[in-house]
Amino acid sequence: MSFYNRLRTIQQRNNSLLCIGLDPDIAKLPPHLLNHSDPVGEFCCRIIQATSDLVCAYKLNLAFFEALGQQGWSTLHRVLSCIPPEIITIGDAKRGDIGNTATMYAQSLLDDFKFASTTVNAYMGEDSVRPFINNPEKGAFILAVTSNQGAKDFQYLKAKGKPLYEHVIAKGKKWNNHKNIGFVVGATRPGQLKRVRQLAPGMPLLIPGVGAQGGDVKLVVRYGCDTKGEMAIINASRSIIYASGGEGFAEAARAAASAMRDEMNSYRAKFF
Amino acid sequence: MSFYNRLRTIQQRNNSLLCIGLDPDIAKLPPHLLNHSDPVGEFCCRIIQATSDLVCAYKLNLAFFEALGQQGWSTLHRVLSCIPPEIITIGDAKRGDIGNTATMYAQSLLDDFKFASTTVNAYMGEDSVRPFINNPEKGAFILAVTSNQGAKDFQYLKAKGKPLYEHVIAKGKKWNNHKNIGFVVGATRPGQLKRVRQLAPGMPLLIPGVGAQGGDVKLVVRYGCDTKGEMAIINASRSIIYASGGEGFAEAARAAASAMRDEMNSYRAKFF
Repeated sequence: MSFYNRLRTIQQRNNSLLCIGLDPDIAKLPPHLLNHSDPVGEFCCRIIQATSDLVCAYKLNLAFFEALGQQGWSTLHRVLSCIPPEIITIGDAKRGDIGNTATMYAQSLLDDFKFASTTVNAYMGEDSVRPFINNPEKGAFILAVTSNQGAKDFQYLKAKGKPLYEHVIAKGKKWNNHKNIGFVVGATRPGQLKRVRQLAPGMPLLIPGVGAQGGDVKLVVRYGCDTKGEMAIINASRSIIYASGGEGFAEAARAAASAMRDEMNSYRAKFF
Repeated sequence: MSFYNRLRTIQQRNNSLLCIGLDPDIAKLPPHLLNHSDPVGEFCCRIIQATSDLVCAYKLNLAFFEALGQQGWSTLHRVLSCIPPEIITIGDAKRGDIGNTATMYAQSLLDDFKFASTTVNAYMGEDSVRPFINNPEKGAFILAVTSNQGAKDFQYLKAKGKPLYEHVIAKGKKWNNHKNIGFVVGATRPGQLKRVRQLAPGMPLLIPGVGAQGGDVKLVVRYGCDTKGEMAIINASRSIIYASGGEGFAEAARAAASAMRDEMNSYRAKFF
């Protein structure tokens, strides 16, 4: 099944635009898990088991697994094995390098770890992105407008009358012959999100920054979805996975995820 | 010792601008090494032992170690332990992410692996770079103009009358309060290299793309060095590490490295 179809199918089946970001910082885990042989893996798998009927995707932040050293590798494999196969997995690694190196990164993420999709940084241009989009079943989300403060340093610079991120959108559309490219647009940038959706009406948008980063869910649903109220993947990480720091952390994560999904769906009902 | 001073010291001591890029593709290793318990580690360490008096730096391409899976982690630690402490190590990972994630990547590369420096992608702006430059003893090379075909997709776009890469240079200079920032400029872009050296006369430039990628060594030395004929770190990977595919691969790498260093030094003598 094509990447776009996989995404639509799971968004419809679970009636959800929600993506949970698994950024498991060992310093923030519930203390009772620290005696486990793989605290981070256990933490993530229990959250997945408690929430997988509520989400369209899980976004795994590679930095938090790399920070565990060699153990992180097997933890990452274990966490991926806990995710039901119909849910989209996003390897949030933001890689970008020359062709032969990008090929190595893509093999690691897409073939070894078997992520359904990745995030990529396109500063180095087309040949740095190609290895991530060669397989029509695998998706790639190219960084366009990011949610952080530093986004304004370069992404808003105007060239030929339009900001850099619009040039990224234009190239991403051009490279999209397999219909498996999406864009990352921060939830904290509703004006830019609206613009990107106009420019790329049929493409998936990965939208981080609701929850702890403060993005407005109503505006994100309104501007981020396609005309069917789909194809926005709205990511919350810390506000869900750290909803409780106690033994009931997984149930608390489920409650937070359920509330977030319902809030998104209330706006979908209103606008679409 | 500050990063800039460490670099000058080793360039003077080994009389070398040469950086060897360790991009160890297991498919290209000498066949007799494949029986070793850690073929990639053995390959790299033997090249290091044969060449460490000829170089100022080794650049380790993280993708090639990640491609080995869990084993890659210990291989990378082993290879780093083979490098004499006075030689600059560059973790070529091109990371770039929001602040808390960038902090995780920086901890992994600079504190866990103890790289002396890294490459970073600044598309996400200042907070994505800061964790890599907080320690004055550690350097960061920000991608400016890359050596690959795709460099032209975005890096040359003109905003406010100057190309994007010049905006990157301007920000990098502004962020350089610890004097530990450098830039990546491809050897295949001599005109841009000359311009970057004019804009950043005292900063180190990491220049990949001589050897297999075809950059002109004469132009790279002429345009890449500071006024003392230093502060250019000129990287060759495949032309050195795969100089021979047989049992004498380390000696062949030494011969190729020695010839490359001597060629660079002949141009330093001519121009500086």
